Amino acid sequence: MTQYTAPLRDMRFVLHDLFDAQALWARLPALAERVDADTADAILEEAAKITGQLIAPLSRNGDEQGVHFEAGQVTTPDGFREAWRTYREGGWVGLGGNPEYGGMGMPKMLAVLFEEMLYAADCSFSLYSALSAGTCLAIDAHADEALKATFLAPLYSGQWAGTMCLTEPQAGTDLGLIRTRAEPQADGSYRISGSKIFITGGEQDLTENIVHLVLARLPDAPAGPKGISLFLVPKYLVEADGSLGARNGAHCGSIEHKMGIKASATCVMNFDAATGYLVGEANRGLAAMFTMMNYERLSIGIQGLGCAEASYQSAARYACERLQSRAAAGPQVRDGIADPIIHHGDVRRMLLTMRALTEGGRAFAAYVGQQLDLSRYAEDAGERERAQRQVALLTPVAKAFFTDNGLESCVLGQQVFGGHGYIREWGQEQRVRDVRIAQIYEGTNGIQALDLLGRKVLADGGQALFAFTSEVRAFCVDAPLHRDALLEALVRLERTSQWLLEQAPRDVNLVSATAVEYLHLFGLTAYAYLWARMAAIAQRKLDEDPAFLGAKLACAEFFFQRLLPRSLALEASIQAGSASLYGMASGQF
Amino acid sequence: MTQYTAPLRDMRFVLHDLFDAQALWARLPALAERVDADTADAILEEAAKITGQLIAPLSRNGDEQGVHFEAGQVTTPDGFREAWRTYREGGWVGLGGNPEYGGMGMPKMLAVLFEEMLYAADCSFSLYSALSAGTCLAIDAHADEALKATFLAPLYSGQWAGTMCLTEPQAGTDLGLIRTRAEPQADGSYRISGSKIFITGGEQDLTENIVHLVLARLPDAPAGPKGISLFLVPKYLVEADGSLGARNGAHCGSIEHKMGIKASATCVMNFDAATGYLVGEANRGLAAMFTMMNYERLSIGIQGLGCAEASYQSAARYACERLQSRAAAGPQVRDGIADPIIHHGDVRRMLLTMRALTEGGRAFAAYVGQQLDLSRYAEDAGERERAQRQVALLTPVAKAFFTDNGLESCVLGQQVFGGHGYIREWGQEQRVRDVRIAQIYEGTNGIQALDLLGRKVLADGGQALFAFTSEVRAFCVDAPLHRDALLEALVRLERTSQWLLEQAPRDVNLVSATAVEYLHLFGLTAYAYLWARMAAIAQRKLDEDPAFLGAKLACAEFFFQRLLPRSLALEASIQAGSASLYGMASGQF
Repeated sequence: MTQYTAPLRDMRFVLHDLFDAQALWARLPALAERVDADTADAILEEAAKITGQLIAPLSRNGDEQGVHFEAGQVTTPDGFREAWRTYREGGWVGLGGNPEYGGMGMPKMLAVLFEEMLYAADCSFSLYSALSAGTCLAIDAHADEALKATFLAPLYSGQWAGTMCLTEPQAGTDLGLIRTRAEPQADGSYRISGSKIFITGGEQDLTENIVHLVLARLPDAPAGPKGISLFLVPKYLVEADGSLGARNGAHCGSIEHKMGIKASATCVMNFDAATGYLVGEANRGLAAMFTMMNYERLSIGIQGLGCAEASYQSAARYACERLQSRAAAGPQVRDGIADPIIHHGDVRRMLLTMRALTEGGRAFAAYVGQQLDLSRYAEDAGERERAQRQVALLTPVAKAFFTDNGLESCVLGQQVFGGHGYIREWGQEQRVRDVRIAQIYEGTNGIQALDLLGRKVLADGGQALFAFTSEVRAFCVDAPLHRDALLEALVRLERTSQWLLEQAPRDVNLVSATAVEYLHLFGLTAYAYLWARMAAIAQRKLDEDPAFLGAKLACAEFFFQRLLPRSLALEASIQAGSASLYGMASGQF
Repeated sequence: MTQYTAPLRDMRFVLHDLFDAQALWARLPALAERVDADTADAILEEAAKITGQLIAPLSRNGDEQGVHFEAGQVTTPDGFREAWRTYREGGWVGLGGNPEYGGMGMPKMLAVLFEEMLYAADCSFSLYSALSAGTCLAIDAHADEALKATFLAPLYSGQWAGTMCLTEPQAGTDLGLIRTRAEPQADGSYRISGSKIFITGGEQDLTENIVHLVLARLPDAPAGPKGISLFLVPKYLVEADGSLGARNGAHCGSIEHKMGIKASATCVMNFDAATGYLVGEANRGLAAMFTMMNYERLSIGIQGLGCAEASYQSAARYACERLQSRAAAGPQVRDGIADPIIHHGDVRRMLLTMRALTEGGRAFAAYVGQQLDLSRYAEDAGERERAQRQVALLTPVAKAFFTDNGLESCVLGQQVFGGHGYIREWGQEQRVRDVRIAQIYEGTNGIQALDLLGRKVLADGGQALFAFTSEVRAFCVDAPLHRDALLEALVRLERTSQWLLEQAPRDVNLVSATAVEYLHLFGLTAYAYLWARMAAIAQRKLDEDPAFLGAKLACAEFFFQRLLPRSLALEASIQAGSASLYGMASGQF
């Protein structure tokens, strides 16, 4: 029953109309030679085909069949192996990868749109690819030349896949508690021993080799997070000529049975004196791993967008077909037994909520992608640095706000279906189960919020934040639509931030007590900024495509009228501070 | 892994301290002879045992194993048959039933607390009982003496079970579209033919007989909702001596595969010239069915509370045991590797949100129960009528607000567990899947909201609403705690209601455009009222039980500081009206 068609029209709007990608890429030398508007459009069209026609049709069976584990081997659902082969032959794993080693070097602003399609088609399938792309990023940024030369090309090509081995039973959020050990060997390699849990794609039958990035402790390492190093541990050792050698001591002990993403293998990985290679400097592993984690954070945020878009498409289609009752304004389809429920106000409220959050998120994802591209490719060091600070500020917002909105949207998309939304065959309940994990993994959304408020806003005295709000304020000067509402939201964010800057030093609990609501306030304000920008463009170009751009204006109106008011509640709750959270002793819970 | 312990201390607080049940029951003659505080406490203790020790342990396996369907037969999971036998022997199905036919005649204010325990223990098991109790209520209120004499006693005793057959593929929310036919027979019975879907417990292996209440059309019935009649259709016909006779033409064609409540059989029921008996008047079936539907609406609301309480208990226990990172205020357990996450502000925010919503909801459920008891048992006709109007007003709020909060709470209770919340064995994800249906069935929450705003608030010019707000206002006069915040919320509800009363006649779309947010605004205000009342009592009696009552005061503080501000956003969104929902044509979605 599940169908998915990539929203190409809206993606082109974001890329070309909203962010003028062609002009941006033209002034970044590394990108100018690789990509222009036409190339980007061709890539998006090809991506739409592979996600809509190859991957999306696997999703329902993937959920029903799930992955199977027997004697250390994982079997993915029917069709996954064949689809992976086609997928990897298209070069999609390396879409944003370093061209020196076989990556396609495409801009992130383009890649985020592709990632959204991929998650919309099937979350489980996407993860095998997303983890590989992140592994490559960390290797490219931190590994020595020999490791890069050996591992990057087969990872980019999807012949091999990557994983991220952080969590241990006693060490989840608190990675300082990691116990996995690394013993230096005479040949410069290490022997890695320990157990990791929740390892996505730790074992699978899609690729010839699996490259694990593993956090572990050297014998003399200091306790806590500053004593953690990063190691590359392949499933099969690699010979000098690049061929596969001996089986390494990295084995899957079992897989988890989960609420959703059932076609993704979530593995317990046992490292038993496995051969590993140090990536980056000793005891600086957490910093190196953050290269991958930041990539995955944005990617997982986009999982929220993809699921929401797919759920919206099904819900909108259903609402236009399902006949129940008459519209409040009187019969709309006189010869039918009833009117399509799309005429019902509450159904519209649900669909527009999904759409305003998803399109706002899509624009925000591309905005973060733009900053990532600037931080990597801008010629001016100052510009790279400014963009890097914005990326650091915006990444936790993207991860948590996209995925919180993703759950809300998928729940609404299920609700539009009434009873059928609860039945498996219709596919809407799978979206709810699949998207739910995105609020949890890659650092729970509570941890993202702490990162935003504590490390990104307060730690630099609000500098990165105010750089962002200045940009919004500058836009307001000439904003033709929604200026007052945007300004009001902006002032609310600035006022709340200022208050937190003043109060936090006096109350150690304030940050963790208010961070989640602060992140939502930030997210709503950022969406308001992007909706106002999109509305301005839609109004200016309305004649070019009245149906599409008229809908864009209507969605913007809905966002400002019905969703942005949520910021009122968030501000009030934040201003209430931490006291009411600490009125009970632990034993009273 | 799932454990559940009925919150007896809080239930006694609600019953005795908040609502002074003993005094209420003493003045209602029918109840005075049946129940006092000691009886009620004994019943609650017995209920805690059967739900905590007999039913809750079946829940995980019930989810994994599910119900099975083969050749028209449904098999419930291991242990369900034995548990049902013990359960029915305790007389629990007939707890609130008419004593003339074997019911226990206990007050609803007590029964709602029992129902909460039942849903907390296992939603699927609960449904077999809840549908039976509702079937009895409709039969008792509308059937003739012969039907009552034949069917009520074995239903109350749990020897037989009941179902509610409304939905057809083309007729969900819009019951006017029902096509099932009823042909009158010479002996006064009817032949029922047609198909019903989503029939909970339509077939099962727990009881000897199943009694279906079926909506169908007589040959000469007018079109639409005023041409629907209600019929009792047993699985096995019943002989004059009460023994089972021939198999009737009511068969289960298949069962649904669902997101959750997997141990509840959701059946397609085919009626093939099945013998049925008219219940109540011809063409007045919808009104008669509403007796059952209103019962089920409150019951399903309580499903939201039960799931939230069970999820809270697990999450609070986990938060006190799980060690990760150090508290912001410095180490709390110096010799541990880290502090329990209960010291972390955001974990407290999540747990307190769950608790404030669940305890507020529990008080509200008992409040509705009190009104139901008054509407049934008060000596004064005027008092019965006033209570009946309050029941009509409050029932949709209970159904929708409890279940929306139930999902929010179960999602939070899953989030507290981090990655483990997504793994099936821990049980938290099952709560999310099980509670989700409660927002959909028994009339989606969108439909509840339409009922509240359209039929219960606007249709009588706000009379029932202002009767409720007057009670709140009267309480405010002497409220010792949270008076200003409560008054502010009250004024907001009154102001918004007044605005809707004025605007609705001018805008046909206004009701459906704002109803869901209005229902939430109403619910929050009602909770504020009950939290202020609970806080007043807790403060007055604090010395009697400082730990429990101190926690109650702290929860109240949290509710007013951090949750009630949501009403700011709701008011603003409602006041934005319907226009932004109708800026797009159907084809633009």
